[in-house]
Amino acid sequence: MPDPSPLGTRIGILGGGQLGRMLSLAASQLGMRTHIFCPDAESPAFEVTPCKTVAAYNDTTALEAFARQVDIVTYEFENVPLETATILEKHVPILPGPKALEVSQDRLAEKAFLTEAGVTVAPYRAVTTRESLDAAIAEIGLPAVLKTTRLGYDGKGQRTLHTQEDADKAFDEIGGVDLVLEAFVRFEREISVIVARGRDGATVTYDVAENVHKNHILKTSTLPADIDTATAEAAAKAAKIIATALGYVGVMGIEFFVAESGNAGLLVNEIAPRVHNSGHWTQAVCVTDQFENHMRAILGWPLGDTTRMADVVMENLIGDEIHGIAENLTPGVQPHVYGKTEARAGRKMGHINRVKLQKRR
Amino acid sequence: MPDPSPLGTRIGILGGGQLGRMLSLAASQLGMRTHIFCPDAESPAFEVTPCKTVAAYNDTTALEAFARQVDIVTYEFENVPLETATILEKHVPILPGPKALEVSQDRLAEKAFLTEAGVTVAPYRAVTTRESLDAAIAEIGLPAVLKTTRLGYDGKGQRTLHTQEDADKAFDEIGGVDLVLEAFVRFEREISVIVARGRDGATVTYDVAENVHKNHILKTSTLPADIDTATAEAAAKAAKIIATALGYVGVMGIEFFVAESGNAGLLVNEIAPRVHNSGHWTQAVCVTDQFENHMRAILGWPLGDTTRMADVVMENLIGDEIHGIAENLTPGVQPHVYGKTEARAGRKMGHINRVKLQKRR
Repeated sequence: MPDPSPLGTRIGILGGGQLGRMLSLAASQLGMRTHIFCPDAESPAFEVTPCKTVAAYNDTTALEAFARQVDIVTYEFENVPLETATILEKHVPILPGPKALEVSQDRLAEKAFLTEAGVTVAPYRAVTTRESLDAAIAEIGLPAVLKTTRLGYDGKGQRTLHTQEDADKAFDEIGGVDLVLEAFVRFEREISVIVARGRDGATVTYDVAENVHKNHILKTSTLPADIDTATAEAAAKAAKIIATALGYVGVMGIEFFVAESGNAGLLVNEIAPRVHNSGHWTQAVCVTDQFENHMRAILGWPLGDTTRMADVVMENLIGDEIHGIAENLTPGVQPHVYGKTEARAGRKMGHINRVKLQKRR
Repeated sequence: MPDPSPLGTRIGILGGGQLGRMLSLAASQLGMRTHIFCPDAESPAFEVTPCKTVAAYNDTTALEAFARQVDIVTYEFENVPLETATILEKHVPILPGPKALEVSQDRLAEKAFLTEAGVTVAPYRAVTTRESLDAAIAEIGLPAVLKTTRLGYDGKGQRTLHTQEDADKAFDEIGGVDLVLEAFVRFEREISVIVARGRDGATVTYDVAENVHKNHILKTSTLPADIDTATAEAAAKAAKIIATALGYVGVMGIEFFVAESGNAGLLVNEIAPRVHNSGHWTQAVCVTDQFENHMRAILGWPLGDTTRMADVVMENLIGDEIHGIAENLTPGVQPHVYGKTEARAGRKMGHINRVKLQKRR
C-alpha cells in the first residue's frame, strides 16, 4: 500500500462532462491539480481547470503526453475504451482499475460477475441470433427486456418485449450485435446505493436513494427511500460486496430493483464504476460528498463520513428545465449548473438538491 | 433592478488567494465562468479556471482588457486600490460597490460610518502627531490600542499601550502615518456574523461564530457560540444594519467583541467587505455556504438558506500544520486545502471543518 498521495498531486480525468467537472471541483477543494482529457472542445469541465487535452480516446500520442503530465488518472464514465486504459496504464496508475471498466462495459460480463460475487440479478440469457432469442424467450418467458450488451445508456439500445411480434421488431432494430435478454422485473421501486472503497480496502456507503426515471433518464432521487431497514441493509451489503469483489478504488453507484412482494426481493439492475447521478444529493447534506470521497479514495486518503444530515430530494434539470433556475430558487434549494452552452432536449443541464431543513438549536 | 444574471456570466475576481479560489469554485457550481486577476504568478486561484490575468492592480491596460472579458467584477480582499476600482467601474459593474472598499480601507472612516449607522464601537480618537496621541490617551485612558488607519491585518500595524513608555515606543515604530487610538476592550469573547445582502436589498445572516485568535491570526471558529440569544440577535441585527447602510451587495463578515459583564455589551471590532475566514464553517453544515451566497447576491439571484444543520468547529491550518493532513482526517472532518506551494510560517494553507454528527433516522 503506497503512502497517501501528496498535496498538489496532478489528477487526470478522462471525460469532460458534468461528472468530470464536479470531480475536478472536488479535487481542487483538496488542494490537487486537475487535467481534463476529452475529445469535445466544448466540454463543461474545461471551465474549471487551466489544463486540458482535446483529443480522441484512441490518440496514442495525445494519451502519452497526457500521462506524462499527471500522477493519477481517473474517469467520469464507464465507456472509456479499454485500449485507452491500456495505453495510459503503462505510464500512470488508473483508478478505479480497468477491471471495473471491463466488467461494466458488457452487460453479460457484468451479470456473470455479479452472480459470481453472490448478489442477485434478474434471470438472463445471452442472445446472438434470432434463434437464440427464441430459445431465451422460451426459458425466461415474456414480458422480458432485450438489450445490447455494450454502449447502452439512458434507455438507448433496449426494447421491452411483450409479444412474439415485439421480439421480431426488436431483433430487427437492435440485433446484429451481442444482446442479452433479461426477465422483466415487476418492481415496487428503484433504489441505488453509492459506495466508496479506499486503496486500503475500507468501504463506506451512503444512505439508500429512491429513484424515479422519466423517459429512461433519472428525474429524482429521494432520501430517505421508502423501504424497510432490512432492505436498506441488504442493499448496502451488496454494494460493499460488489466493490470489494472488483478490487475497486473510488466511488461507484449500484442500482437495484425492489421487486414486488412475493417476488424475488432485491435485484441488482446495473453497476456504474464512477460517481453517479443518484448520488448528487450528497453534495447538500453530507459532510463528505461522493465527489470528495472518490478523490479521497484514489488518493489513498481516509474515506470521509457519509452521515446524512437532513432529508433531501435531488431533481435533474433536463433540457429547457434549466431556464429560469435563478428565479425559481426557493428556500433550501442548492443549485448545480453544468455550464453546457446548448440546452438540447434530453440533455442533463444541471440539478437541484431540495433540502428539508430543520433549524438546530 | 436588473434581471438576474444569466448562466455563463463571466465573473472577474480581483485577488488570487484562497478566498478567490473558493469564490471561483462556487461560481463554477452555479454554471458561471471565472477570470482571476492577480499580480502574483503563483496564485492558488489560477488552478481552478482557464482564465487569468497576471498584472499589477495599477496596470490600466491590463485592467481594461480584463474588464472587456468579464460581465461583473468582485473581489476577495478589502485592500483593492480605489484607483483600480475606479478604472474598472467605467467598463463593468463592481460588486460589492466601491463604497464598501472606501469605508473598510480606513479605520477612521469605518468607525465614523459605523457610529453613524447606529452600531456601537469602542471609544476612539484620531491620532496624527505625538501631541495628539497624548491628548487621545488623556481622553481614552490606558490601556489602549494604537493602530494605523490603513493596511493593517492579522495584527500588523498595531500596538497595545499600557504605559506612557509604550506610547513613546509605539509612536516611533508605527507613527508618521494616520493612526487611531482605540480604548482597550476587556472582552469575554470574540464573535462574528456573516451577512449576505442581495441586489434587491434582502439580507440573511448565518449563525454567530465564536472566534479564537492565535498570534493575531484566526485559529478556530466554533458553532454554536457560547452566548445568549439576546446577544446573538443583537449581532445579527447589527450585521444587517451595516450591510444595508453600505448599500452592500454580496457577503461580508462583521467581527464583534462581547465585552465583560458590566461593560458596554456588544461592540463592532471590524468589518470585512468580502467572504470571511470565520464563515468557512458554512461549507460543511449549510445548504448554501458563504461563497455560493456571495455569488447569488452579486448575480441578483435569490439568497440561499443559512440554516446550520450541525454543530461545527472550523480550524485554520497555518504553515506547517498543513502537512500530514491526509493521515489526520478523522470522521466528520471536511478538509480544504488552498494549493499554495510553500508552507511559510504564519501562512494560511488550508482549513478543516470538524462536524459533530448525529445520525438522522
